[in-house]
Amino acid sequence: MAKQYYSSRNLKFLLYETHDAEELLQYERFAHMDKETMDMMLDTAQQIGDTHLYPHLKSMDHDEPEAKNGAVTVHPKIGPWFKEMGEGGWLSVNAPLDSGGMQAPTILESCFSFIFQAANNGCYPFVGLTKGSANLIESFGSQELKDEFLPKMYAGKYTGTMCLTEPDAGSSLSDMKSSATPQNDGSYKIKGQKIFITAGDHQHADNVIHLLLARIDGAPAGTKGISLFVVPKLREEDGKMVPNDIIAASIFHKMGQKSAPACHMVMGEKDNCVGYLVGQPNKGLTYMFQMMNEARIMVGVTGVSIASAAYYSALEYANERPQGRRLNEKDPLKPPTMIINHPDVKRMLLMQKAVIEGSLSLVLECAKYHDLSHTTTGDEQNKYALLLDLLTPIAKTFPCEYGIASVSNALQVFGGYGYTTDFELEQFYRDIRITTIYEGTTGIQSLDLLGRKVTQANGKSIQYLRSMIGATTEEAKTYEDLKRYADQLDTEVQRMGQVTSHLLQFALKGDNERFLADANLYMDLFSIITVGWQWLKQAVVAKRELITNNPQGSELDFYESKLHTMKYWFHYEMPKTQGLATRLMDDEVLTITDKTEIFA
Amino acid sequence: MAKQYYSSRNLKFLLYETHDAEELLQYERFAHMDKETMDMMLDTAQQIGDTHLYPHLKSMDHDEPEAKNGAVTVHPKIGPWFKEMGEGGWLSVNAPLDSGGMQAPTILESCFSFIFQAANNGCYPFVGLTKGSANLIESFGSQELKDEFLPKMYAGKYTGTMCLTEPDAGSSLSDMKSSATPQNDGSYKIKGQKIFITAGDHQHADNVIHLLLARIDGAPAGTKGISLFVVPKLREEDGKMVPNDIIAASIFHKMGQKSAPACHMVMGEKDNCVGYLVGQPNKGLTYMFQMMNEARIMVGVTGVSIASAAYYSALEYANERPQGRRLNEKDPLKPPTMIINHPDVKRMLLMQKAVIEGSLSLVLECAKYHDLSHTTTGDEQNKYALLLDLLTPIAKTFPCEYGIASVSNALQVFGGYGYTTDFELEQFYRDIRITTIYEGTTGIQSLDLLGRKVTQANGKSIQYLRSMIGATTEEAKTYEDLKRYADQLDTEVQRMGQVTSHLLQFALKGDNERFLADANLYMDLFSIITVGWQWLKQAVVAKRELITNNPQGSELDFYESKLHTMKYWFHYEMPKTQGLATRLMDDEVLTITDKTEIFA
Repeated sequence: MAKQYYSSRNLKFLLYETHDAEELLQYERFAHMDKETMDMMLDTAQQIGDTHLYPHLKSMDHDEPEAKNGAVTVHPKIGPWFKEMGEGGWLSVNAPLDSGGMQAPTILESCFSFIFQAANNGCYPFVGLTKGSANLIESFGSQELKDEFLPKMYAGKYTGTMCLTEPDAGSSLSDMKSSATPQNDGSYKIKGQKIFITAGDHQHADNVIHLLLARIDGAPAGTKGISLFVVPKLREEDGKMVPNDIIAASIFHKMGQKSAPACHMVMGEKDNCVGYLVGQPNKGLTYMFQMMNEARIMVGVTGVSIASAAYYSALEYANERPQGRRLNEKDPLKPPTMIINHPDVKRMLLMQKAVIEGSLSLVLECAKYHDLSHTTTGDEQNKYALLLDLLTPIAKTFPCEYGIASVSNALQVFGGYGYTTDFELEQFYRDIRITTIYEGTTGIQSLDLLGRKVTQANGKSIQYLRSMIGATTEEAKTYEDLKRYADQLDTEVQRMGQVTSHLLQFALKGDNERFLADANLYMDLFSIITVGWQWLKQAVVAKRELITNNPQGSELDFYESKLHTMKYWFHYEMPKTQGLATRLMDDEVLTITDKTEIFA
Repeated sequence: MAKQYYSSRNLKFLLYETHDAEELLQYERFAHMDKETMDMMLDTAQQIGDTHLYPHLKSMDHDEPEAKNGAVTVHPKIGPWFKEMGEGGWLSVNAPLDSGGMQAPTILESCFSFIFQAANNGCYPFVGLTKGSANLIESFGSQELKDEFLPKMYAGKYTGTMCLTEPDAGSSLSDMKSSATPQNDGSYKIKGQKIFITAGDHQHADNVIHLLLARIDGAPAGTKGISLFVVPKLREEDGKMVPNDIIAASIFHKMGQKSAPACHMVMGEKDNCVGYLVGQPNKGLTYMFQMMNEARIMVGVTGVSIASAAYYSALEYANERPQGRRLNEKDPLKPPTMIINHPDVKRMLLMQKAVIEGSLSLVLECAKYHDLSHTTTGDEQNKYALLLDLLTPIAKTFPCEYGIASVSNALQVFGGYGYTTDFELEQFYRDIRITTIYEGTTGIQSLDLLGRKVTQANGKSIQYLRSMIGATTEEAKTYEDLKRYADQLDTEVQRMGQVTSHLLQFALKGDNERFLADANLYMDLFSIITVGWQWLKQAVVAKRELITNNPQGSELDFYESKLHTMKYWFHYEMPKTQGLATRLMDDEVLTITDKTEIFA
């Protein structure tokens, strides 16, 4: 049997009790779904995790992909699992009903993604990228492209990728150089190089479908001249599938997440790489951003998944490992106690639990906004779209940054053993480190949050968020023992407003560099408070349940643990905002200077 | 040529200008040394780093040690380097003159250790452990033991180890089970197992000398029944060297620091393992603590060394890598700027510089206290010994905990490339993670700091520290632009006193568990302030130099960068004490409870 890598009880608490996924079923878009189906799918997802994913976690890390003569070979167990993903309909979970998809809510899809990645995060990109690229074709592609590629992608016969990064253009997409030359038949000849292309090539599918950004000859400079293309590994010619002159020239060897190869793709070396335009010319980045925004939240899910798997390992170990005596024990001859009884170990475990359940709640909050922005209309629709926009960089960043610290704590609980390959901890520690880099680094997300999202729609997004938080604190204040936390959160929100106003002064003066210099710290401040909100929200649900339904046994423990963990967040993590606010309001500028001699 | 992995200018600034190593030469113990010799040795250490160490950094990680039939094979390049270490006298740097050693100050030895480890941290334990175990024999062994083992250990023909940890006794040494049965000839038969024995076996020396803790049959339970033994891999019998029944049954595969194998040693399987008692029976832990205290500071040096190597890689990369445009640049057609011009990158680099130069200053402060406690007498001697005791857990912990964050920032500067094996960053990230675990975890160090050191000698240690800090702030106040930082540090020290008093209440009530529950956070608070002191101390030296000697060119840059980095510490890191103090004074206890259901 697989070890525990997530809590099914907690997932259902968040999905149904905290975020009320059933509410979505009232909308026509999801009217064909019911709770029974959702529950059954969640159970099946775990079975797949237990049988296809978790058992191969370590061997997929150990037996790395290999590149040879432009072809990449990945772990043999990826094939059977991916086939299962296609046949079970997991690749078309959120595809429209009339494309043969399940048209399920994103909040539910996020839960599947969480379970799969908690079981084995490294190979998940095969699924995530196939779904994401199919989704792009679905949204913006011609009927012809849809007919040719979607059925096979959904069935798991083809996989997909996302080709953005180039050797000299990582975070800065405007410097992209790959070119597209129009052909007489309406297609384009593609030339260029892409790096870090996850799952860019492998032996387990009939074809690999690259969703690739390139510039059509003569296109405007910068981001306004980028177009989106479908570039398959094999293309049809005279009824036969022939190589399309896009090869994985090499792979990057990585510290972690090894099972999905990061490929260096070379297109058009023989001047024979054909691409098919998706949508309108020069709109590529707009289209790609749809996929990127969803991918960003999915990376948040990756972060919390890995942290979850590490936490349940650490919790099991702490309950079973005897070492030392309790600090108030005077008798050195007493048998050793389990390490979970040491306050420092409890603190490290509570931190993990708080980060994981807080992060998961946050990404599901975003997923629900995504669903609501696709089901509601008018002002309501606008509200949810803005809230999603605002919270996306946080949902990408917090679960990953704090997830790294959380996994580090899990490793620390194991002591020296955590550093050895006898346990999984060292792998989780390596795996999760990429999550603050790909899909936009923490630096990029922080610029997005402070530089764009906070001010967007004349600050309407922030107003909406404040009113959402306000609704939670109002409800919390109706419970005597939650009142102080509600008040604390109100105060934090207030102070964050002051910090924001302070920084906006510089934006108003046109000094963006000063405005954004400490954007990362602003992100941290914003995240701690936002996650505090998610914890108070969970505490309100737990408190209500405890009062109304008088749960017993493990259910009583569960709800009480929610209150305990909420308190951890407010008593241990929330005080960090004090130092952050002090720094963000500080007038001493140290990171803006032309003098590189400051590093002498 | 090797890349830069440390700053020689900075090291000399700390050694001579900040910590005045030359002052030590007035004492008889070091009267045979002079600055010219010290400088020459520093240069030679770098040459060894450049030629023997840095070039093999990656291959020593890649080609891991192997264990087979009780013997371990390590990287071939470890042999020639270790030979050089012996022949060059580096293994007896701090050994007494009359043992053929150089009797150099520990502060100088720490600089060599820093250089070597910055060049290649993974293999350094071969040196560190040989020196440490020789030092134990030197201090507590009989003349016979000294004659038999020391000359060969100093010459690099034998290597040494430190055998403490057992499968069921990691941090808790009192639960150790290895046994020693007295023999008629005065030796002991040793039986038991030890784990995580670094450099426990390898092919590059004629013998491996284990300094091993075990219980003599019938010894008292707990830590008072532990004795120290010399247990060689081979022992002399009838003029021949024969196996001594201590074998490396297996090695642990580790996430990093791979070149020094962590061995599982089995002693006495054939009932033929002989050990020789060092000093008195049952005094083993006291003796071992001498080595452990020195080893703890050396681990601090390991942390700062790795962080240094990572920082100079990141700094070079940031200066050469174009990406994006400055935040105030309106023209997207301008060529990309170097990433060092982004404030967020500058912040990440400044953080690294502040952590590294602050840590290095702290470990050298401790090393000098070590030297002074061996050269002065009476009250003065007592003062330095107490200061060293007090700061040792901080010098072990801070450079490693903050070093991990520092290396993570260095990796982040590289973006996706940092995650690949194309660069060294991912290795540094793996290597440094062990440093908060071995030689006493951060949890153990924090209990030591708050539970023992802060209260030792009726609080005299803390008084001494306050007066040392006071001397620095007084001097700083004589410079107009340092005054505010001196005042800030005074305030911080004041508040830390309040936090300490608050916590001591619980100790006075006999509630150790409550007293020590948040010891890790207390360690963090104490460290940030202590490093703030080290930064102010450096700033005073720099300021004085700028005013007095009017330096030009790169020297001007150097001293100004000291002031700039000091400011970084006070404006960015110091505010964190606010949240820490709030938490430490908070009365809500969440980590002391018998209910494991809080993790439901």
